[in-house]
Amino acid sequence: MQIDLKSLAERVGGRLDGPADLVVRGLAGIRDAEAGDCTFVAHPKYLKDLAGTRASAAIVGQDVECSIPAIRVDDPSIAFARALHVFAPAREELFPPGIDPQASIHPDSELAEGVHVGPAAVVGPGCRVGVGSVIGAGTVLLHDVAIGEACLIYPRVVVREGCRIGNRVIVHAGAVIGADGFGFARMGATVHKIPQIGRVVLEDDVEIGANVCIDRATTGETVVAAQTKIDNLVQIGHNVRIGERSAVSAQSGISGSTTVGDDVILAGQVGIADHLRIGDRVRIGAKSGVSNSVEDGATVSGIPTRNHADWRRLQVHLTRLARYADEIAALKRRVEELENR
Amino acid sequence: MQIDLKSLAERVGGRLDGPADLVVRGLAGIRDAEAGDCTFVAHPKYLKDLAGTRASAAIVGQDVECSIPAIRVDDPSIAFARALHVFAPAREELFPPGIDPQASIHPDSELAEGVHVGPAAVVGPGCRVGVGSVIGAGTVLLHDVAIGEACLIYPRVVVREGCRIGNRVIVHAGAVIGADGFGFARMGATVHKIPQIGRVVLEDDVEIGANVCIDRATTGETVVAAQTKIDNLVQIGHNVRIGERSAVSAQSGISGSTTVGDDVILAGQVGIADHLRIGDRVRIGAKSGVSNSVEDGATVSGIPTRNHADWRRLQVHLTRLARYADEIAALKRRVEELENR
Amino acid sequence: MQIDLKSLAERVGGRLDGPADLVVRGLAGIRDAEAGDCTFVAHPKYLKDLAGTRASAAIVGQDVECSIPAIRVDDPSIAFARALHVFAPAREELFPPGIDPQASIHPDSELAEGVHVGPAAVVGPGCRVGVGSVIGAGTVLLHDVAIGEACLIYPRVVVREGCRIGNRVIVHAGAVIGADGFGFARMGATVHKIPQIGRVVLEDDVEIGANVCIDRATTGETVVAAQTKIDNLVQIGHNVRIGERSAVSAQSGISGSTTVGDDVILAGQVGIADHLRIGDRVRIGAKSGVSNSVEDGATVSGIPTRNHADWRRLQVHLTRLARYADEIAALKRRVEELENR
Repeated sequence: MQIDLKSLAERVGGRLDGPADLVVRGLAGIRDAEAGDCTFVAHPKYLKDLAGTRASAAIVGQDVECSIPAIRVDDPSIAFARALHVFAPAREELFPPGIDPQASIHPDSELAEGVHVGPAAVVGPGCRVGVGSVIGAGTVLLHDVAIGEACLIYPRVVVREGCRIGNRVIVHAGAVIGADGFGFARMGATVHKIPQIGRVVLEDDVEIGANVCIDRATTGETVVAAQTKIDNLVQIGHNVRIGERSAVSAQSGISGSTTVGDDVILAGQVGIADHLRIGDRVRIGAKSGVSNSVEDGATVSGIPTRNHADWRRLQVHLTRLARYADEIAALKRRVEELENR
Repeated sequence: MQIDLKSLAERVGGRLDGPADLVVRGLAGIRDAEAGDCTFVAHPKYLKDLAGTRASAAIVGQDVECSIPAIRVDDPSIAFARALHVFAPAREELFPPGIDPQASIHPDSELAEGVHVGPAAVVGPGCRVGVGSVIGAGTVLLHDVAIGEACLIYPRVVVREGCRIGNRVIVHAGAVIGADGFGFARMGATVHKIPQIGRVVLEDDVEIGANVCIDRATTGETVVAAQTKIDNLVQIGHNVRIGERSAVSAQSGISGSTTVGDDVILAGQVGIADHLRIGDRVRIGAKSGVSNSVEDGATVSGIPTRNHADWRRLQVHLTRLARYADEIAALKRRVEELENR
Repeated sequence: MQIDLKSLAERVGGRLDGPADLVVRGLAGIRDAEAGDCTFVAHPKYLKDLAGTRASAAIVGQDVECSIPAIRVDDPSIAFARALHVFAPAREELFPPGIDPQASIHPDSELAEGVHVGPAAVVGPGCRVGVGSVIGAGTVLLHDVAIGEACLIYPRVVVREGCRIGNRVIVHAGAVIGADGFGFARMGATVHKIPQIGRVVLEDDVEIGANVCIDRATTGETVVAAQTKIDNLVQIGHNVRIGERSAVSAQSGISGSTTVGDDVILAGQVGIADHLRIGDRVRIGAKSGVSNSVEDGATVSGIPTRNHADWRRLQVHLTRLARYADEIAALKRRVEELENR
């Protein structure tokens, strides 16, 4: 893969500030870049690295001083993302249309035009896969799974019976969509399983990370709404509903029947208890434990969570706790002295 | 699937309080229910939702006021679980007996009557699978694995060599049973692997969640005892032993050689250090970090854990910490004034 | 498997202190051992168990009093690890060289001599697998994956396009190497995916636990350096670099672009934020949340982390917090009394 700087500038929507015919062979961060690479500077704190970079060109802001050939744009991050699209291998190259002869396709299933099914993949009875979707090697779709158009289901995913996946959804390797919710009823010395007869719905443009688990609903649906992105190793309990454009970072867990709003951001390793309501535009700090509902727009942190500003003040007080203890001891001595006067 | 209310009342062991021939087509929570659904009310706080529900019938307590056709029972939760069994698809429907031609079955293995083996599943040499058990698509049993009767091993599970699974055990997709314990010995600049030659034993009626990892013992056995249920993405270290009827919620981890008693409940994202003894009937709060053994019957929370009542009091004091700091400052001023009198 | 005590002593490099022809049939911990087993005592606190053990022999220190036949060594842990190697099944026994007829091998791939490829495994175009390596059943190598010599890739692993694995690397079942990093750019109401075109590099003698996720770099490489060991269910973000001989315990997570030094130990369920530098020889306590860089040699704990000694002192103060509150209240009363004199 190589491209001249003029063409790259056009592809990312930038203004060329250097030789049009300079050949770019790769993309790299400013410190890792080698000759032939194009790099970028999105944050002022990396501007100082521009002088020492080995990159042959850089995507930079409109007014940034830059000693190497440049593509000038308003938002270098967005432009670099576009450049990454230029260099990324085409999906059809990695997963060309066609059904591998070693895939297992049930005769009562429907695969639309242009679908890729990899070796050792399994498409069960009643499944439908939309135009141009990819079912990776070793992926298993059980009964009556519906997958929309232009989806990319990576190798070794499992989608359990009856689940629904929209259009342009990406599911990374190892994810399990629609396993049973964790529901049991105790009677005396016997633990009875509560059957889980609902399903999982992933709406359009959702992305699900590697080895994520999203449990089917007891009845009804567990829903991840449009454009929401879920990072690796996340757990989503039964009957959870996550709104649109939210982001759930790695290793977080959301317990059964909790609803999460639109445009919410969960940092990593967050846990949310069951049956709560997390409002729209909420932000939850890394490693927080949420045991109460959270209002729209709030930013919370801690175990249990409190308002983020309160949490920060608490950290300051904790740092001073030894001093407070000393001050109490000193006060006791001084009061005793006063009492003995 | 549909059933008349009289038959449903009989199946759940309840008393009919409505028209015998009313047709029920589905089950749903009280707020999600549509016409044709039967719902339930187990907790008094949901009684107020009964008036507004669109459900056609409800499973309720014996004396509850209910304006729609009802099935009256002593325990609505248990009755609803029974109703879920009525509506759940039969296992034989999803996994009919038979060996898929694209499964790989070693000639030196024994599959009993009525076993289902899905496509791309692998049954290694020396394996035995009991009557009526299901080995899902893409599941791999390495050497000498023994699986009892009526087990449901979902797709894409791995069971490593020598592990033992009892009867009626359910293992969800992506679980890894019997990977090596995390054991290494450092000698100078070299890290040596400590071979892990033990196995994992899952006793009768155990359920293991999706993408769970249970490590084989260094020597001897890692054991999950009868009726214990393990939620998704849980980590169980080598030589751990968990007692009977315990529940381990999602994303919790138990380190090597720790023993957990009977009837223990771990909430989500709990971590337990190695070589500890967690007693019977212990309850551990969500996100707790357990670094000491816990006595029978205790309820603990926090990082590190303390008695739950103490932990709650600590939270109250933390909330007041800013006030304590102010009070100390005020006392200092007042004492100074007294000293200057 | 059985071996006489003299041979076992030779194999572990110890001095025989008992009958040369005593037959050892297994290895076991001191409390689990049965007749025929050899056990070991590495820690003085287990010496008292020697009297009651049912083991037929023990590996012990040079000067330890031992009433049963013994193999005397300087380091019983290392010697027991060697004994485990004696009893562990040979790799070639479990995974004999050869390509299973039900594996899917792309014609444009190269498998060296002595390679094992299990059933339902998939080796994509451009892949190279070195001498004596094992590709387990159901494992999927996408395009242009390079795997060195004597590697053990267990069943149902996924290695994405372009990733590089060194020699003698072990990857446990369910791991996903090279899934996309979690990178998105928001423009108005649309969430755009940032393509991830880098790769993952696992250097020689690395071990990766079950269901671990290691994300590919946005550009460049995510690196796990030589001899580093990663436990189950760990998350490694894009562009992370972990140094040599480090150990990452179960369920920990390292966010994007953070570098971790050599000889670092992370206990379980640790989280590290993005773009940090964790120095060499750092130790991080279980369940810690690291939000700042950590200096070489430091030991840290807590959420957020602080120096471990400070963290321990903080725990002491927290335990006394109720008492401090009482003392403040008492001081207020006494000061009031003084003021009223």
